[in-house]
Amino acid sequence: MAKLTTRSEDYSKWYNELVVKADLAENSGVRGCMVIKPYGYAIWEKMRDEMDRKFKETGHQNAYFPLFIPKSYFEAEEKNAEGFAKECAVVTHYRLKTDPNNPKKLIVDPEAKLEEELIVRPTSEAIIWNTYRGWIQSYRDLPILINQWANVVRWEMRTRLFLRTAEFLWQEGHTAHATKTEAIEETEKMLHVYADFAEQFMAMPVIRGIKTESERFAGADETYCIEALMQDGKALQAGTSHFLGQNFAKAFDVKFTNKEGKIEYAWATSWGTSTRLMGALIMTHSDDFGLVLPPTLAPIQVVIVPIFRSDEQLAEINKVAEYIQNKLKLKGISVKYDNRTENKPGWKFAEYELKGVPIRIAIGPKDLENKSVELARRDNLTKETKALEGLDTYIENLLATIQKDIYLKAEKHRTENTTSVDSYEEFKKVLEEKGGFIYAHWDGTKEEEAQIQEETKATIRCIPLNNTLEEGISMISKKPSKQRVLFAKAY
Amino acid sequence: MAKLTTRSEDYSKWYNELVVKADLAENSGVRGCMVIKPYGYAIWEKMRDEMDRKFKETGHQNAYFPLFIPKSYFEAEEKNAEGFAKECAVVTHYRLKTDPNNPKKLIVDPEAKLEEELIVRPTSEAIIWNTYRGWIQSYRDLPILINQWANVVRWEMRTRLFLRTAEFLWQEGHTAHATKTEAIEETEKMLHVYADFAEQFMAMPVIRGIKTESERFAGADETYCIEALMQDGKALQAGTSHFLGQNFAKAFDVKFTNKEGKIEYAWATSWGTSTRLMGALIMTHSDDFGLVLPPTLAPIQVVIVPIFRSDEQLAEINKVAEYIQNKLKLKGISVKYDNRTENKPGWKFAEYELKGVPIRIAIGPKDLENKSVELARRDNLTKETKALEGLDTYIENLLATIQKDIYLKAEKHRTENTTSVDSYEEFKKVLEEKGGFIYAHWDGTKEEEAQIQEETKATIRCIPLNNTLEEGISMISKKPSKQRVLFAKAY
Repeated sequence: MAKLTTRSEDYSKWYNELVVKADLAENSGVRGCMVIKPYGYAIWEKMRDEMDRKFKETGHQNAYFPLFIPKSYFEAEEKNAEGFAKECAVVTHYRLKTDPNNPKKLIVDPEAKLEEELIVRPTSEAIIWNTYRGWIQSYRDLPILINQWANVVRWEMRTRLFLRTAEFLWQEGHTAHATKTEAIEETEKMLHVYADFAEQFMAMPVIRGIKTESERFAGADETYCIEALMQDGKALQAGTSHFLGQNFAKAFDVKFTNKEGKIEYAWATSWGTSTRLMGALIMTHSDDFGLVLPPTLAPIQVVIVPIFRSDEQLAEINKVAEYIQNKLKLKGISVKYDNRTENKPGWKFAEYELKGVPIRIAIGPKDLENKSVELARRDNLTKETKALEGLDTYIENLLATIQKDIYLKAEKHRTENTTSVDSYEEFKKVLEEKGGFIYAHWDGTKEEEAQIQEETKATIRCIPLNNTLEEGISMISKKPSKQRVLFAKAY
Repeated sequence: MAKLTTRSEDYSKWYNELVVKADLAENSGVRGCMVIKPYGYAIWEKMRDEMDRKFKETGHQNAYFPLFIPKSYFEAEEKNAEGFAKECAVVTHYRLKTDPNNPKKLIVDPEAKLEEELIVRPTSEAIIWNTYRGWIQSYRDLPILINQWANVVRWEMRTRLFLRTAEFLWQEGHTAHATKTEAIEETEKMLHVYADFAEQFMAMPVIRGIKTESERFAGADETYCIEALMQDGKALQAGTSHFLGQNFAKAFDVKFTNKEGKIEYAWATSWGTSTRLMGALIMTHSDDFGLVLPPTLAPIQVVIVPIFRSDEQLAEINKVAEYIQNKLKLKGISVKYDNRTENKPGWKFAEYELKGVPIRIAIGPKDLENKSVELARRDNLTKETKALEGLDTYIENLLATIQKDIYLKAEKHRTENTTSVDSYEEFKKVLEEKGGFIYAHWDGTKEEEAQIQEETKATIRCIPLNNTLEEGISMISKKPSKQRVLFAKAY
């Protein structure tokens, strides 16, 4: 197996190679669309199941709405339409027919042209709010707390596996409320659900904040986000939660009678995370040897590799491996025993390092004698010899330790790569030399924000929640500012 | 709440009303596409999770392939292309722009025309086998055992909720094998997985069989199916498993080196079930009062309704209800306590009957005195009074009994509506007067099959597996036949 490009050589190349070599995903024959391979999908499934559990725990139910959005619905909420019109796949026909010039070829049947074009959903506010109109008459019908797991399509010009693909998998929550206060509470609640998931399950520290107006979701009154810092010093938006005000209710005429008997438009939120999180996961923890996965998301948590010279030795090791497997399975730990004979132990070691299996157990003839095994941690590449006795409990605790340690490592990286600057010169210097998160004062205008972006490619990732107030002056216009905001170059 | 149309009045109307009134699904603003509402989706989720468990148990892994299929791939397997060309949604453009004549409207941007049209997948053999070409070089790469949960689109002209919709949710297994024998074994294995799921989880008896050539999946060498009998005497195909031979391997040039070192094309299977199963579930068990759900698939297995005249009574009942809920939850039984005051008990009874909740518990003042409750079974509408003591165990067993009883009831219905006939006259008479499954002799030709279908609208549902051989003569051509095949009108 050829080695990976290292991160210091070329971070972007390292990422692309790793996604393919670790069998997570690959490009398909369809421009910008990826194939998510079984190993990658197994990790996504674990993310999905845990998020789904958290959504249900907070009172949400799943439902499913159409893939297609009639153009007229799509147009209804003006800002939303404007935001997505430039990158949407359009269905115009509903039939193919045999090419009269070549019976082996098919052509679009011009007689099967749709009266109204259908947009493949880039996001589902339009179709969902068109549906909610029929569901909401009285305050008693509210709140509606729905989530959908679905595929969406955004015709991106430059695509990268998981990070930016024309089609991606995601979940989108769409809720309707009787009051503004309740809708804002929901928006914030879901932001915290995302943040807790990122930190506890992905072992990925995030900053919770609010987007500036220019970075808001098209159609939202306020966009909340979680922002993570990747190893190369660039930020990645890992989830967003939008307070949509009454914009969609007005666009789709969704009114209800409130408790006081008055007719009012419903209040909305939407919130989403996607397979992009796979990219965030990889770029938060992995190293030059391959993936590093938090135990919570690892399809295989422990792998056992036998080291043997004879069939007799293998037979003995098989017994020990079976014993360990049974013990670990009882504790709900997923374990794989790889006693294939066509590959050498060294090959297997490299393979499971590449795949990010958190703990590797090696059993050789000496271990048989000593009733011990060799344990290797994927995250910090340390090894130790442990007695068979009590191994299951030791591993159970070790998995929890690894989960905590990789979070702390990512947090340390973020701390070391977060800088507060007071001048635009310093800002540019830090950005160029080090990258990372930069806290700086901003005058609150689109103009200053745009100028900074144009000149440095850095954007305001968010105005952090619970930000410490601190008097200062903004970097370019030198106007007074009451708090620092979070800047970074971003994926 | 207005009553449902009864089944004897108008079966088709009863079905449509029930789907909507029980909050399972509704038509959307997009022609032929449905909205699956939370209650319907919760049932589908249970089906999906159980099937997913069975697929994994039999060694399959999930993955995800693109929604879009380039036209050239779509054309590659000729029969498959021919089978689906007439009903596929075609993406021709990737951008909208503002209408120069009306700035509030969007039009398709003619400059954003795709070089090659993209077909929204009606089924994924083409895109998947184009991908497998890169994955399969040696027999060591086989078998590939993959399943995908996805949405697909078939532009059906006449649609009905769940039974036939332009977009539907499904799973599609796609496997690749080194030998023909192994591929056939897989095809049959998955048929039995489907049949076991239908019988054990949906409580729906099915006939396992093989399709005739004219009913085969486009591109298959052999199609296996499970067929269920609905209450109105029509058949419903509930799942199919296809042996695809080397057709797709040849179309997409998927070759491998076999154990003997020879180059060979890979052998394929595909198999699928869809949200159509929701229709099958409804039309197998439900009655004039609403849904009847098998306990395995019921989102709420037990509902508790308090009957009270005063707040004091309600307070007492609340305590008992809480006690019962805790007991049932410990047994993993899903239970809902509906003590809303805005609806009367009678209204609630009707509501949970409509929703198919298997067991209803009512608690009134007399029950408080007697330390008992009233238990009502949804499936046979019987009631009984039971002591609080030991209620949890009683309910646990009762749920199992209900599961078995509704299976037996459906099986009895099928037995009573299955007829063997020996002449075409008898065939037509039974079909008209009674419908149901009809076993009759057939000469094995497309011609006789087509004539029967044209004259009676009945089709050969399948040639049952393990069919009893029995000499006879076919109904029209009077040619000798060695076994009866299964006819019915079908959904």
